[in-house]
Amino acid sequence: MVLNPYNQGVFKSLLGEPEVEELFSTERMLANFNAFEVALTKGLFQSGHITRESQNHIVTTIGNFEPDLVRLTIDAQKDGMPVPGYVRQLRERLNNTFAKDFHYGTTSQDLIDTSLVMVLIDLTRIYRTALDHILSSLTELEKQFGQRPLQGFTRMQPAKMISVGDRLRAWQEPLSNSRSNLLYIDKNSRLLQLAGPVGNRDEWGDKAPKIAKLVASDLGLKVSKQGWHTDRTLFCTYSDWCSNVVGILAKIGKDLSLMAQMSQIEFTGGGTSSAMPHKANPIEPEILVAFGHYVPQLTACMHQALMHEQERSGSMWTLEWLVFPQICTLTSKSMKIAGDFLNRISSVK
Amino acid sequence: MVLNPYNQGVFKSLLGEPEVEELFSTERMLANFNAFEVALTKGLFQSGHITRESQNHIVTTIGNFEPDLVRLTIDAQKDGMPVPGYVRQLRERLNNTFAKDFHYGTTSQDLIDTSLVMVLIDLTRIYRTALDHILSSLTELEKQFGQRPLQGFTRMQPAKMISVGDRLRAWQEPLSNSRSNLLYIDKNSRLLQLAGPVGNRDEWGDKAPKIAKLVASDLGLKVSKQGWHTDRTLFCTYSDWCSNVVGILAKIGKDLSLMAQMSQIEFTGGGTSSAMPHKANPIEPEILVAFGHYVPQLTACMHQALMHEQERSGSMWTLEWLVFPQICTLTSKSMKIAGDFLNRISSVK
Amino acid sequence: MVLNPYNQGVFKSLLGEPEVEELFSTERMLANFNAFEVALTKGLFQSGHITRESQNHIVTTIGNFEPDLVRLTIDAQKDGMPVPGYVRQLRERLNNTFAKDFHYGTTSQDLIDTSLVMVLIDLTRIYRTALDHILSSLTELEKQFGQRPLQGFTRMQPAKMISVGDRLRAWQEPLSNSRSNLLYIDKNSRLLQLAGPVGNRDEWGDKAPKIAKLVASDLGLKVSKQGWHTDRTLFCTYSDWCSNVVGILAKIGKDLSLMAQMSQIEFTGGGTSSAMPHKANPIEPEILVAFGHYVPQLTACMHQALMHEQERSGSMWTLEWLVFPQICTLTSKSMKIAGDFLNRISSVK
Amino acid sequence: MVLNPYNQGVFKSLLGEPEVEELFSTERMLANFNAFEVALTKGLFQSGHITRESQNHIVTTIGNFEPDLVRLTIDAQKDGMPVPGYVRQLRERLNNTFAKDFHYGTTSQDLIDTSLVMVLIDLTRIYRTALDHILSSLTELEKQFGQRPLQGFTRMQPAKMISVGDRLRAWQEPLSNSRSNLLYIDKNSRLLQLAGPVGNRDEWGDKAPKIAKLVASDLGLKVSKQGWHTDRTLFCTYSDWCSNVVGILAKIGKDLSLMAQMSQIEFTGGGTSSAMPHKANPIEPEILVAFGHYVPQLTACMHQALMHEQERSGSMWTLEWLVFPQICTLTSKSMKIAGDFLNRISSVK
Repeated sequence: MVLNPYNQGVFKSLLGEPEVEELFSTERMLANFNAFEVALTKGLFQSGHITRESQNHIVTTIGNFEPDLVRLTIDAQKDGMPVPGYVRQLRERLNNTFAKDFHYGTTSQDLIDTSLVMVLIDLTRIYRTALDHILSSLTELEKQFGQRPLQGFTRMQPAKMISVGDRLRAWQEPLSNSRSNLLYIDKNSRLLQLAGPVGNRDEWGDKAPKIAKLVASDLGLKVSKQGWHTDRTLFCTYSDWCSNVVGILAKIGKDLSLMAQMSQIEFTGGGTSSAMPHKANPIEPEILVAFGHYVPQLTACMHQALMHEQERSGSMWTLEWLVFPQICTLTSKSMKIAGDFLNRISSVK
Repeated sequence: MVLNPYNQGVFKSLLGEPEVEELFSTERMLANFNAFEVALTKGLFQSGHITRESQNHIVTTIGNFEPDLVRLTIDAQKDGMPVPGYVRQLRERLNNTFAKDFHYGTTSQDLIDTSLVMVLIDLTRIYRTALDHILSSLTELEKQFGQRPLQGFTRMQPAKMISVGDRLRAWQEPLSNSRSNLLYIDKNSRLLQLAGPVGNRDEWGDKAPKIAKLVASDLGLKVSKQGWHTDRTLFCTYSDWCSNVVGILAKIGKDLSLMAQMSQIEFTGGGTSSAMPHKANPIEPEILVAFGHYVPQLTACMHQALMHEQERSGSMWTLEWLVFPQICTLTSKSMKIAGDFLNRISSVK
Repeated sequence: MVLNPYNQGVFKSLLGEPEVEELFSTERMLANFNAFEVALTKGLFQSGHITRESQNHIVTTIGNFEPDLVRLTIDAQKDGMPVPGYVRQLRERLNNTFAKDFHYGTTSQDLIDTSLVMVLIDLTRIYRTALDHILSSLTELEKQFGQRPLQGFTRMQPAKMISVGDRLRAWQEPLSNSRSNLLYIDKNSRLLQLAGPVGNRDEWGDKAPKIAKLVASDLGLKVSKQGWHTDRTLFCTYSDWCSNVVGILAKIGKDLSLMAQMSQIEFTGGGTSSAMPHKANPIEPEILVAFGHYVPQLTACMHQALMHEQERSGSMWTLEWLVFPQICTLTSKSMKIAGDFLNRISSVK
Repeated sequence: MVLNPYNQGVFKSLLGEPEVEELFSTERMLANFNAFEVALTKGLFQSGHITRESQNHIVTTIGNFEPDLVRLTIDAQKDGMPVPGYVRQLRERLNNTFAKDFHYGTTSQDLIDTSLVMVLIDLTRIYRTALDHILSSLTELEKQFGQRPLQGFTRMQPAKMISVGDRLRAWQEPLSNSRSNLLYIDKNSRLLQLAGPVGNRDEWGDKAPKIAKLVASDLGLKVSKQGWHTDRTLFCTYSDWCSNVVGILAKIGKDLSLMAQMSQIEFTGGGTSSAMPHKANPIEPEILVAFGHYVPQLTACMHQALMHEQERSGSMWTLEWLVFPQICTLTSKSMKIAGDFLNRISSVK
């Protein structure tokens, strides 16, 4: 057992999900910060807030920026997050004349939230692929075994006979619906955060809507009519979708464990035991069930973290950081191990 | 302190919500069961499964049915829910010739789920009214006090000045979006459950789609292409919406408590203290915060309850019953006390 | 489905627990308030704060007090809890001369917390009896069937053979330990709350320790060196114990469901189905599992409710009210249905 | 934002806790596995199960064992945990004659649980030190500022005046009690897990109690009368203690945030803002509050993970791994940042 088994030590392959972990890496976050500040700088120029010279100098400096990560880490501890340290380091590299034009009118949360929104675009793509993989595995299983009879169980007691296809379609339908909803979720998540220090876009005066539009367009995002620092429903809705998919997959995992227990499925690649050589444990279904308990708890934290006091809550924000990346990662892991196990089923019934 | 303070003893007015409690009453449930069985009976006749005579006898009998509630309660304990007892009592009142036509091809969960779907239609209407009330209170407050300056706070420290209107708009926007989403939620929730004992509509053979269509139409619901006994996402999505609204209102509650603490608001009807006569406590904002902690925990249970094993899970179903009515009720209560308190604010700043 | 199925409508026998519900009734609470105020009044006299005449008048008045429950309920809504209304009504019945001596130096939370502590004493006795019942059922089962071989399962796959006794002892041991720990929990829970309006016992000056000692002694409670309005660990520890017992019983429930599924147990009194006459569903084991998911969520709320701000938090206090009585009740219900089902097992293996 | 901010990227110093993370490292786990297997080997020899020659060969081989971590990681994925791979690698290094004597009669869970118990011994020591540090900070603050008057607040409204000392003592008392309880928790946690493949110590026959005693004594642990593979209350009780302490500290964090908001405290080293140079944010108190929400959710998972089906549950075990190390680590982090912030308070009132 290690801390955070999903990305450490010998548990890394079992519970880790490197493709998504990379999305939440410091490197990716800093790249997103840079993209945001470049887009803002251009917007400030185009709206007449700063000169072309200033714009060019800032954009070039950001392009060449190599952060001192050690110092950034130390500053993040003091400031409660990495943005003030990031801004400081970049400002030091700018000519004094232009330094004040950098990060003008914006604030930490604009960077953090927009960066996260950019991560979600890539994440959604990963989910789409993984869900498609599961759905085609289910189709394949139905083609092969769908006609076979299967003992139906209600309340864990033998009920009437069903077909393997009936069981598989009960797994498939909610996943297929979730796949459709993902398009809707994706569309609503691509939202620029641009609100300024106290959330009212005050520093940019009348030009705020124009700047927001320019920045959003540059980043391929949509623009909202006002900032949403304390409106965390975007991330909650994303978490809810994740949590529901994890639950649907956990139901499949529970069924697979029970089917394995009663020899209703055969599969390859089962887990071995240190003491009983005959065993072939259905590991992935068990993990799906574990996630089916765990991820809803994290999602509950996201809902509680809606309670931002006043213009920004450090505690609710920190709470989000503790859980949101986990939700995103474990959802992807759920999908991948479900797909992997379904592919390894050699017989049903 | 009483068990379930929201509907008992002296806590009843404080935390109760009779308008929604009525929707979850036994009376309402039995009325919905009756409506379902009538619609099914008609569908069975129209699809040629039973005779007109049988239909008429059953429909009339249901119309005159007065259940023995004491026996129903005893049976519900033995069976784990009230449907088998309800079906038994009704069958006893039917002529032997027609008794087998009653409840033909259906099962407990069809009644329970459809009844709940029917409850949600009324519930959604209550939410709509309550949200509109809050939104108009906020508009009114903005009209009166929106121009006044207000100390902005980030991370609970004085930041820059904002306006009262800025604060109010940050409250208003997520509620207004939730109000819009409710239309979408409502539309997707009006779904007939009709799946039969093991979820595959097997008893009705080829006529299953036709029967489903007839029953749905009679009840004003939509029909799904297959049963959804183990696909609980409809209720999860409803809960997610509720939990998000409760969170948005809890943020307002937290802000109101802090504003009261720093004399940024004045309000009438504050709570008194048994020991300190000068006090006027902002009770409703505190309750909003309490619900903001509690409801997400219930929603986590709904997500966990996705893990129905096989064709129906008695444990996951019971888990839903423990939490879903609470979620629905407290969401309405949140809206009403928020609206009530906002109306009692006599001054901001 | 009804709101709070455990004490309403047709679900009442299934999920209700009247013996414990009575402990959390308004009647019991008001009786405890009266006992507290009588004890305090005597303590105030014995410590020289009030005259014997005043003491006698107050004690007699409390003895004859019949509260106006309707008004109490209305006041509880306004004040956020019933104590101010209770105090008001009692004061009205007192001679003006002595009215100020009533409730002198104390506050709402002293009454609410002490009343709850008094409830726990009875509750613990109920738990003790119910646990003893389960433990003797297990002993009986072991005597009858303990020697029989049973297929052992690890990770839900057939492992080595064990005996029925091995399985039963794995159920018995943690329950037996919990039974022992209950003595310790009970002892630490019998603690008077007496702290005054802002928690520092200030109103009673130097005589505070003496008064606390007198009141505690009168009520059969222990006295703490200071008030503990914002130290909720007593109730958290009680909840933790409950939640652990519910989890231990849920493990047994899960095992029983699986044993029923694989015909490893036979039992009488199974639940019937509305559609499948052959079924005998193991209802109680399913409920144990449902509670095993639900009660930990409530316990999480108790831990979060530790975050009382300043001298008293209305929101955290309300949160406790929403969950603590439920925890207490469902724990008892868990024990009783577990004992009941174990008694109905007619054969193992 | 990074995945698992508490041990990654730029959030590492903010939320990380290297001293505890080390306890949960793969290195530490493997060292504990080795210690366990050495103790078991000696016990098997002393109880006459294996020869002295075999014992010496196995103990020496373990002493020289350098695991292939890459292979171990791959195997852990397949087997659902690292023990089978560990046993395989060690067996390969043993003479064929003695290979079967290694790991004789034991199983994966014996190693995993005992290793974790060994971790807790060190962890408890860390907690003790950290709590002592906080308690002495509080004593120091009371000495300096205890006599000063402080506005008391109940329900977030001005109540009566208290002293700074009153507030500090309300913080100190539950921590001091938790410090005392830690001794009790520590004592009960030092329990050897030794149960064998299906939990009944069957492989060792009559000698099981003797072997258990020998192994326990060698490892400095206590011995239980039977194995406790499915009795997870030891870890639950530890988590409960942790969760309660985190809650107590979160209450302090909430108070400190509110005191900072109303200028009732002054402190050094506040967090800076990227946009508002005047700010000095109380970062640590905010983190304490975030943990006060999060850790109880993890503890809820521990309680749910009590529901081990049959002789061992892969899903419940995985669930524990996901949360228990986090609980342990964040508890320590809570203590350390609380102590750090209290030390930086330069004035109260």
